[in-house]
Amino acid sequence: MASTRIREATERDCGDILRMIRELAEYEKLSHQVKISEEVSLCRPPPPRPNLTPISTALRADGFGENPSFHCLVAEVIPAPGELQGPRVVGLGLYYFIYSTWKGRNIYLEDIYVMPQYRGQGIGTKIIKKVAEVALCKGCSQFRLAVLDWNKKAMDLYKSLGAQDLTELEGWHSFRFEEAAMRELAGW
Amino acid sequence: MASTRIREATERDCGDILRMIRELAEYEKLSHQVKISEEVSLCRPPPPRPNLTPISTALRADGFGENPSFHCLVAEVIPAPGELQGPRVVGLGLYYFIYSTWKGRNIYLEDIYVMPQYRGQGIGTKIIKKVAEVALCKGCSQFRLAVLDWNKKAMDLYKSLGAQDLTELEGWHSFRFEEAAMRELAGW
Repeated sequence: MASTRIREATERDCGDILRMIRELAEYEKLSHQVKISEEVSLCRPPPPRPNLTPISTALRADGFGENPSFHCLVAEVIPAPGELQGPRVVGLGLYYFIYSTWKGRNIYLEDIYVMPQYRGQGIGTKIIKKVAEVALCKGCSQFRLAVLDWNKKAMDLYKSLGAQDLTELEGWHSFRFEEAAMRELAGW
Repeated sequence: MASTRIREATERDCGDILRMIRELAEYEKLSHQVKISEEVSLCRPPPPRPNLTPISTALRADGFGENPSFHCLVAEVIPAPGELQGPRVVGLGLYYFIYSTWKGRNIYLEDIYVMPQYRGQGIGTKIIKKVAEVALCKGCSQFRLAVLDWNKKAMDLYKSLGAQDLTELEGWHSFRFEEAAMRELAGW
């Protein structure tokens, strides 16, 4: 039988990561907000790298260069002996380090995703467990993530694994300033 | 008349920063959660520095060492000519860089605070404007923050400055795994 393992992503996984980022955005019904892809990240334009497909230039530069802006775990299905297909990347957990003035350095799990046909096998739980392990290894005392309120399945999973819903418990709301508002504020 | 300026914090501001972090936690009625202070940050224990007061060791190491985990702006009241008192630090905006797989590198404003006796003078707005400017300078296309739902004054201010309430608009809930849950998950 096929088994699943969670491992650190490498630059070679960028195609799979980008595909799953888009699938996740579709799932969250917010894909119109996905701007990263062909364009190069504005913050650290990487040098031209003709051997890489341009579609994931930003992702490669931001996640797999020097001082990466994020880290990524991938869930990989290892085929059973005798299966012709090689390992398949079927899920991801993309995170970065944040800072709480109350607790010190922590992890924020920006994206967690398992492909629809691989759900219900505990792969999401495996990713969460690995993030917890990484966080503890790095001396963090908590990790955070955000969930859409209609995604009850995900909410129930995280709660069953011990997470607290801070919006429900303490009343935290997420606010965002977008570029137009920022330009207005900065007088640019 | 006294005027206010927003500037980057330096290591010398740590005492003021720590004081305001505590005041903010009191204001948010969540001060029981403040763990950072006397203890050294778990992630990067700094060497003993006998000339510094131990109370802000973690903050100094995490914010003002190499590869800082956060950045901080302070609001400073500049006394009018002839006033005896020197400049006073009366507010802060503490932020770090995060990563959106949809937008690239962004800023998260973890803490924003103005001392009660200096509110209503536009200092909070000045801090927000400066954060927007820093974000644009660093090539970010958005910045995020979190607000408690009973803090209507803050919510109204951010909205009036152009922010969107993503919890209200899209249904985002903040979740947190704390250390006990993480240990359970990681089997530690």
